[in-house]
Amino acid sequence: MNSITSLCVNESRFRANFEALSRIGATGDGGVHRPALSEDHLRARAWFAETARQAGLGVSVDGAGNHSARLDFDGATQTLLLGSHLDSVVHGGRFDGPLGVLCALEVVQTIKDAGLTLPVNLEAIDLTDEEGAHVSFMGSRAATGKLHAADLDSPHQGVAVFRAGLERAGLTPGGILAAKRDPASLAGYLEVHIEQGPRLMTEGLDIGVVTNIVGIHWYRLKFVGQANHSGTTPMDQRRDAAQGACAFAVAAREVVMRDFAGAVVNVGLMDFEPGAFNVVPGVATAALEFRSPDAVQLLEMRRVLLDLARDKAAQFTLDLEVTPLEATTPVPMDTSVQKIIHEAAGELGLTHRAMHSGAGHDAQNFADLCPTGMLFVPSVGGISHSPEELSRWQDCVNGANVLLHTVLKMSE
Amino acid sequence: MNSITSLCVNESRFRANFEALSRIGATGDGGVHRPALSEDHLRARAWFAETARQAGLGVSVDGAGNHSARLDFDGATQTLLLGSHLDSVVHGGRFDGPLGVLCALEVVQTIKDAGLTLPVNLEAIDLTDEEGAHVSFMGSRAATGKLHAADLDSPHQGVAVFRAGLERAGLTPGGILAAKRDPASLAGYLEVHIEQGPRLMTEGLDIGVVTNIVGIHWYRLKFVGQANHSGTTPMDQRRDAAQGACAFAVAAREVVMRDFAGAVVNVGLMDFEPGAFNVVPGVATAALEFRSPDAVQLLEMRRVLLDLARDKAAQFTLDLEVTPLEATTPVPMDTSVQKIIHEAAGELGLTHRAMHSGAGHDAQNFADLCPTGMLFVPSVGGISHSPEELSRWQDCVNGANVLLHTVLKMSE
Repeated sequence: MNSITSLCVNESRFRANFEALSRIGATGDGGVHRPALSEDHLRARAWFAETARQAGLGVSVDGAGNHSARLDFDGATQTLLLGSHLDSVVHGGRFDGPLGVLCALEVVQTIKDAGLTLPVNLEAIDLTDEEGAHVSFMGSRAATGKLHAADLDSPHQGVAVFRAGLERAGLTPGGILAAKRDPASLAGYLEVHIEQGPRLMTEGLDIGVVTNIVGIHWYRLKFVGQANHSGTTPMDQRRDAAQGACAFAVAAREVVMRDFAGAVVNVGLMDFEPGAFNVVPGVATAALEFRSPDAVQLLEMRRVLLDLARDKAAQFTLDLEVTPLEATTPVPMDTSVQKIIHEAAGELGLTHRAMHSGAGHDAQNFADLCPTGMLFVPSVGGISHSPEELSRWQDCVNGANVLLHTVLKMSE
Repeated sequence: MNSITSLCVNESRFRANFEALSRIGATGDGGVHRPALSEDHLRARAWFAETARQAGLGVSVDGAGNHSARLDFDGATQTLLLGSHLDSVVHGGRFDGPLGVLCALEVVQTIKDAGLTLPVNLEAIDLTDEEGAHVSFMGSRAATGKLHAADLDSPHQGVAVFRAGLERAGLTPGGILAAKRDPASLAGYLEVHIEQGPRLMTEGLDIGVVTNIVGIHWYRLKFVGQANHSGTTPMDQRRDAAQGACAFAVAAREVVMRDFAGAVVNVGLMDFEPGAFNVVPGVATAALEFRSPDAVQLLEMRRVLLDLARDKAAQFTLDLEVTPLEATTPVPMDTSVQKIIHEAAGELGLTHRAMHSGAGHDAQNFADLCPTGMLFVPSVGGISHSPEELSRWQDCVNGANVLLHTVLKMSE
């Protein structure tokens, strides 16, 4: 046991791989541009497959384009997936996704190098289009049977761009929908990711153990008043749609900060019609997003925020049209897996805390099928989806080692 | 004197002219589409010139395209201008502008028909591009020497569209700039216009006598914070530019309604960057307009509103960039002319009140050169710049008769 408990990843190999991968689609300012199914994304996937092959691992690609590096063991019937994604947002950072895939690859290589025999097969998996260049979480939803034919009909950049991407990657809609795994074959799913927020860094901690992935609701709120001449319409006779939307945005922040600890709200987009210096806005459309790690809190937020929108509309004599757009429920991570991650971090001498994930991740699609866990490493400044995205190298190594020992503990 | 005081306009001719003119560029929904220098605008001007010619009036067109119907008297050395404009906003109403031109034409015809001899020449004038399809108030600014070569360099729809319009109308930049009148030749300027607001209608009054035309300031306010992930950035660590802009818009309305009676403020346009459901806005740009009939109040509003913007920026830890775009000062109408309009209305048995104009008008450009006055007739619902723009026919006739008797009194 002693040799196993002291096992750690090969830092120099891990770093060389990280640097090699970061050069693919590099934007020259520390970032990468690798939207799913772009040339550079496919080059990154090819690099991953070739690196795994050279390491003596099995390589497979499923119908959804998910790329896997496998280490199978005689007699093992289930597979423990270690995943994340190699695609980036437009002009994004080099850590969001790739760090998790490289931690997974490094852990599998380390276990192979150590000559260990585990009761479960290991699979480092690069999942397709986590960021939703075309279809959000396409790879993990396909693998977990959560993707349906209709989900492929309205890709985010349109059908033509999606079809060109599929052709480039050698994928077909039929193949994507056939990529569903047999849940009985899954021993679990683990993911290392950067926090993308400032909490670990602010508190000086090494590892975050994810308790829940937030549920997210999107609504379009359309405040409707009366467009009018901005010079000749007295202030007290206006039905100014912008006032309703603005008052709502200000009050929504206040109520969430006061009454919904741990939750967040955002009004990230607004549009006034007709939209001129000298016309009182007749219509104001606001994009409302709110997130909570707690299902009950999320529904209560929905009630309070939509009531608030109605109140503000009434206050300014406006009509309100509410359009629900997207809604996910919070997903809890497996409590046993959380406990193991805490133990693994503690035994490595690392500080750690439980925390929820404010962002969605591929892990959320596996959580109802198999024991699923996530761990975070600190993000400098909490910055993400930006070329300035950064995690200190030691924190990345810590993440890989905690993943390694979580795998070993889950395989005991 | 009795025959003069009982003189009134020819209602059936006035109405026939109004209906004929309203058919030119009609949009079929009660509105007209006659942007300055468009085909239909030029057809309306041609109709005006031909109608004046058939009435036995002199017709002239100056270098800025201003069309005049003249009634000259032997020995008169000055001219009393009766003006407004035949151009409309895009898909606008049939009253804003044309009513003033037709009142002017009708008054000149009525005086000619009555065989009166006045000590000043009369000129019903249709001024070019009041609405600013290309260059706001181009005709009245040219006639009053307030237009300079540089003002023609950045027309609102671009140089190519402007040049095509000039060619269609047979105008040249040189001709426009040469259209300046000798101020000594002007006996005054009078304009009938629809109120474009609800005040007369609400109070059940017939005639508004304009005291001042508002001054207008336009500013671009750019609130600058930090774009961030809307899920992973805690509420209390955001620098959300949208919050600054929204809080400003709400507070600006409150402070103006509380502390600046008679003045108005509008935030008619806002833009958030990057502008997505799931990104905290890093930049929010707001279009600020405020208007006051009082020069001192206008400057005080500027101080208070820009201070307020700075306060809101500070409250949300944002930077603020303030760009002044346009500024006009309030223009008082001649007090003697105001008194005459009140008297004329009263003698006709009409109810009347003093009021400022919340919109700009051609009259503002004549006010520093000659005795200038304006009178308003009620707008149903206060609606303007819309096909729904409407003034009751009796109110239009009242406006023409008040103009007629104002002319007669000014000529005494």
